[in-house]
Amino acid sequence: MTAIADKTQTEILPSFVAGSWWAPEDPQKVTDVLDANTGQLMARVSTDGIDTAAVIEYGRTVGQKSLGELTIHERALKLKELALYLNSRIQELYDLSFATGATQRDHAFDVDGGIGTLFTFSGKGRRELPNSNVIVDGKVEPLSRDGSFIGEHIYQRIPGVAVQINAFNFPVWGMLEKFAPAFVAGVPTVVKPATPTGYVTEACVRMMLESGILPEGSLQLISGSARDLLDHLDYRDHVAFTGSAGTAETLRRHENVLTGGVRFTAETDSLNAAILGPDADKDSPEFEAFVKVVFQEMTVKAGQKCTAIRRVIVPEAMVEDVTAALTERLSAKVVLGDPRTEGTTMGALASKEQQSEVRKAVQTLVDAGGQVRLGGPDGSTGDADAEAGAFFAPTVLSFADARTPAVHEVEAFGPVTSVIGYTDVDDAVALAALGSGSLVATVATNDGATARAFAAGIGAHHGRVHFLNRQTAKTTTGHGAPVPVLVHGGPGRAGGGEELGGVRGVKHYMQRTAIQGSPDLLTAITGVWHQGAAANTVTREDVEAGTATHPFYKALDELRIGDQFASGLRTVTLEDITKFAEETGDMFYAHTDEEAAMANPFFPRRVAHGYLLVSWAAGLFVAPDPGPVLANYGLDDLRFITPVTYDDAIRVTLTAKRITPRVTDEYGEVAWDCQLHNQNDELVAQYDVLTLVAKTWPMPKTEQKA
Amino acid sequence: MTAIADKTQTEILPSFVAGSWWAPEDPQKVTDVLDANTGQLMARVSTDGIDTAAVIEYGRTVGQKSLGELTIHERALKLKELALYLNSRIQELYDLSFATGATQRDHAFDVDGGIGTLFTFSGKGRRELPNSNVIVDGKVEPLSRDGSFIGEHIYQRIPGVAVQINAFNFPVWGMLEKFAPAFVAGVPTVVKPATPTGYVTEACVRMMLESGILPEGSLQLISGSARDLLDHLDYRDHVAFTGSAGTAETLRRHENVLTGGVRFTAETDSLNAAILGPDADKDSPEFEAFVKVVFQEMTVKAGQKCTAIRRVIVPEAMVEDVTAALTERLSAKVVLGDPRTEGTTMGALASKEQQSEVRKAVQTLVDAGGQVRLGGPDGSTGDADAEAGAFFAPTVLSFADARTPAVHEVEAFGPVTSVIGYTDVDDAVALAALGSGSLVATVATNDGATARAFAAGIGAHHGRVHFLNRQTAKTTTGHGAPVPVLVHGGPGRAGGGEELGGVRGVKHYMQRTAIQGSPDLLTAITGVWHQGAAANTVTREDVEAGTATHPFYKALDELRIGDQFASGLRTVTLEDITKFAEETGDMFYAHTDEEAAMANPFFPRRVAHGYLLVSWAAGLFVAPDPGPVLANYGLDDLRFITPVTYDDAIRVTLTAKRITPRVTDEYGEVAWDCQLHNQNDELVAQYDVLTLVAKTWPMPKTEQKA
Repeated sequence: MTAIADKTQTEILPSFVAGSWWAPEDPQKVTDVLDANTGQLMARVSTDGIDTAAVIEYGRTVGQKSLGELTIHERALKLKELALYLNSRIQELYDLSFATGATQRDHAFDVDGGIGTLFTFSGKGRRELPNSNVIVDGKVEPLSRDGSFIGEHIYQRIPGVAVQINAFNFPVWGMLEKFAPAFVAGVPTVVKPATPTGYVTEACVRMMLESGILPEGSLQLISGSARDLLDHLDYRDHVAFTGSAGTAETLRRHENVLTGGVRFTAETDSLNAAILGPDADKDSPEFEAFVKVVFQEMTVKAGQKCTAIRRVIVPEAMVEDVTAALTERLSAKVVLGDPRTEGTTMGALASKEQQSEVRKAVQTLVDAGGQVRLGGPDGSTGDADAEAGAFFAPTVLSFADARTPAVHEVEAFGPVTSVIGYTDVDDAVALAALGSGSLVATVATNDGATARAFAAGIGAHHGRVHFLNRQTAKTTTGHGAPVPVLVHGGPGRAGGGEELGGVRGVKHYMQRTAIQGSPDLLTAITGVWHQGAAANTVTREDVEAGTATHPFYKALDELRIGDQFASGLRTVTLEDITKFAEETGDMFYAHTDEEAAMANPFFPRRVAHGYLLVSWAAGLFVAPDPGPVLANYGLDDLRFITPVTYDDAIRVTLTAKRITPRVTDEYGEVAWDCQLHNQNDELVAQYDVLTLVAKTWPMPKTEQKA
Repeated sequence: MTAIADKTQTEILPSFVAGSWWAPEDPQKVTDVLDANTGQLMARVSTDGIDTAAVIEYGRTVGQKSLGELTIHERALKLKELALYLNSRIQELYDLSFATGATQRDHAFDVDGGIGTLFTFSGKGRRELPNSNVIVDGKVEPLSRDGSFIGEHIYQRIPGVAVQINAFNFPVWGMLEKFAPAFVAGVPTVVKPATPTGYVTEACVRMMLESGILPEGSLQLISGSARDLLDHLDYRDHVAFTGSAGTAETLRRHENVLTGGVRFTAETDSLNAAILGPDADKDSPEFEAFVKVVFQEMTVKAGQKCTAIRRVIVPEAMVEDVTAALTERLSAKVVLGDPRTEGTTMGALASKEQQSEVRKAVQTLVDAGGQVRLGGPDGSTGDADAEAGAFFAPTVLSFADARTPAVHEVEAFGPVTSVIGYTDVDDAVALAALGSGSLVATVATNDGATARAFAAGIGAHHGRVHFLNRQTAKTTTGHGAPVPVLVHGGPGRAGGGEELGGVRGVKHYMQRTAIQGSPDLLTAITGVWHQGAAANTVTREDVEAGTATHPFYKALDELRIGDQFASGLRTVTLEDITKFAEETGDMFYAHTDEEAAMANPFFPRRVAHGYLLVSWAAGLFVAPDPGPVLANYGLDDLRFITPVTYDDAIRVTLTAKRITPRVTDEYGEVAWDCQLHNQNDELVAQYDVLTLVAKTWPMPKTEQKA
């Protein structure tokens, strides 16, 4: 065993407050936390006398400052370093987590899943967000005819702290999935784990701090209760809560949430459904996959997941088949016991309190008409000692009346599920909606029209819908596992919040603000060049005369947004068009057949290919010699506005629009605003040219071939 | 006067409930609403015995059904028709609105502004959203290595009603700015206007219903109080509140908001600031523009705007200059009186109650140390009778102590503002933040660095920041006017909500749901073809043999997503590259200089131009003869993945990905997924080709040249 585990058994589990580890010296109220499997003392928890005001103040000042000194990409890169560091000590987290009742398979979700979330946000943050602290949202909106007054939206981090109040079931993932997006956004985190498994969170936080990677004040920990925490928060701060609907309600009633503008989101347990489509008969691959998914959701973390399947909704004629297949699989595969013991496939619930809660909920369901098909309130736990450890038997109930209210309202937060029957798709949709809003539903169908009908019917009642068929039976990430690239959370009973979802998750910790003003000022604010803003223009003649440098010959250390190259006009002849058609093979009639072209609603007569225009534009703007512009890797938002016919001429204006130095490479990305005009100064086409540009030139060393 | 006005003076102002106009027959409690300028009876308001449960149920059933039978574009088009209809009767709304104290200039904001919002959402909805009922949000996320399991996000309308609870100051705009996005989303609206000006809203709703344009159940009206309204709402419904922070709090405390998951947003008055930059001296154009903007915000709607400027924050040395310029301008230009009287520039407040509230607030500010520079609690209203009408004198206060709490907390909802001084930018930022979150701030500066500093400092405390300089002095849409394309709402005291913002506003009435599954099922759900989904493939050989139709020869009535064309390989020779370089003029060394190309980190040797590849791709996929594909209007998301060097060959696969028939044209938009591979089946490039395609072929009539 590690030093961490030794320590927890004798001392008070410490908090990390305002830059130091802290524990009460002479606490009045201490909670003993036990090993869920054995009942051994694991940790002693108390926060008597903790200065939560200091925690918030430290985050708002020191944390905001140190995070604000880094860009989004720099912070994102730190997440990768942190993930690698945690991976190097992952065994310590596994060893400790067994005591929560988690099996090695469960660790994959909690520990590996948490670290994976860091990797995802590190990659997404650097690939999909700018390397600055201002994220532009959407396009520029013209607000005056002459283009002098424009508007757009930006995201900037909120100026407070990100408080996370977590559930006991995922002590590592639950923290990291909230920490990662807040960190990328630049908002300091305060973690308040649930007491029954907070010792695992404490170990992980300790590692993160020991890594030396985190900026000062970016992560604090409150190991235990913090009843006055919300008293210190206001509209600058964000609270992300995961847990019971009851606690969410208590928090929502806090004055600072009701009237103080605290940003509050909740992710609460819901009565998630799995629906077997009417097309899936007993021998279909969908039937088999469906039973496997339900089995998995009942047994992973012993069913202690907000996303677990509580309602199995199947065609009426299939209730018996599904129930039989499910109970058979559970009976054959579940071995309850201490997860540290060879052969165990499911551990204990997180605590004796949970065991008693689940037993009570199952009894309520039975009293409401539930027929026990496996397990039950006092189901056998086999060789596992349900007195010493918080073990609970896998339990399958079936209900003759699919509309029994308890089925849709009472949650047994353990390895428990209810099977009910539906008559048709509309009925299944209505039954799913009786959950009053859920985190996730699975729909097993191999029929596109059925999938579409369910998406339309249940989609808006769910945060996520998982469609399962023969193609995905082996490759699905599962019903219950939130993936970091997709949003997690759901409406109604599920809490109404939203987390994760790739860069959407980062924006949850930012304020979206509309900004209005001149192109020059909006360029200064966003760091992105806007049409109409001042430009530093260089012409072909300047370059040829040697009086100015072509912007393609400027490395990132010299290049500035607004650096602009303006070409002269080049005339397009009919011969050019014809030749281009022949050589490319693009013989579309608008380029080759005068009469047909004139009959087309958009063209005056034969016109130049759009591809000719962009190819020639490159010919007009490119600087030919080796230099810092290394490659053109793409093109965005190309629109052809005015057709170009023969004897028209085109010219191009190319302006450095957005510069994104990469934190891990000797080059960065430069997007160039590209505008083509004709001899009458009409806009012919516009697009962004995407290039890779060296940070310095010549580059310090030859890169490996990519 | 119109029939509407006659009626309102004798009968109870009716509500529109479950498809019929309704008023209580023998009401117990009736509120008399008076002309704000003259005290004449304008309307009698009562909702005694109204069946709000029926309102909600009617919206959820009949309204949802009728709106759901239309697509987003069809609904958006109806908004345009509605706007044209209201424009044809605009004089009736003007005539009636004078009685609220509004001048003809004020009507431009309320009546014209409201109708303009309909036009904007009509245009945006059709240009920026799909012509279906599923909006795809962001890109597809691969969730398995083999591509069989993928994820993405969709928006679908919420399955309930959109309840709007409005403030008295904008009886037309306040309704239409909430109605328009909800209608485009497909969510039925229930309007509850504020009693003092509800008769104007009633007139507008009546016109909208009389237009015959609205689907059944899509709009209902509650003319008066509706205390039990929230009792009938749940997580399917949305409440958008505009008004006082106090009422917002009451609504937030409702059980159905706290625990029932009702989607609740609030837009409340805030103490908005206007900041004069340190660079703007007395003779600068920014100084003049600044004073004009403050003047405008004090006088439009007699300062009764949630967005009005309550705090004028200027360099300490400028306090006297700004105060003098402002009071001078107000004294010279404000003529208080009945807006129907020639020469009046500012009307009465909305009611005697408001007059008394504003007087009280000004007194509080004076008691807190405010020096009256103009107006005051009992300031002169000139010839306007402040006994009969709710007139209030324009009032400017100044404070020696910029941190006087009342300045940042007490809102006088009338033509009232306070001037305070700041020492430096940090101080100005700190003062702005004392408002605890605002809807909007103006910053007058002509300096980019100053603008950037203010954006970073105050941005996250605001929903909108308006930057004002010499370039925008004449073209700005103003500090106080929310524009439909930008979000409206702000954090903290401003309510924490968000409205408008173009299509963002539509999404406020939708649920974002993550969907996971196979490419085939996600294609069926979204109506957008996904990589890896089944395709109906046609090869060049098929086409030449006459055994299959090239998808370019299919009009929209035949074309289906997944229709695919696959070309053969075409080899690129060194001569091709050289020739392309010469003809386009794109002599970039990577295409022309073997040695330099090899030294580049990304290229093996001389490579083909990206523009050659896309030009040739078109040559490989285009069907040359006249047909339903009318034009290629653009290209999206082009990325070059694998370089193509000489003697490599390329082939193209083109698949109909997204089909958007236009509701007003004989053609629609088709986006084609385009993938280029080389002879080793490596991905060379990918992009979307955007085309206009006829609905039928031949087209019914020759279109006008566009």
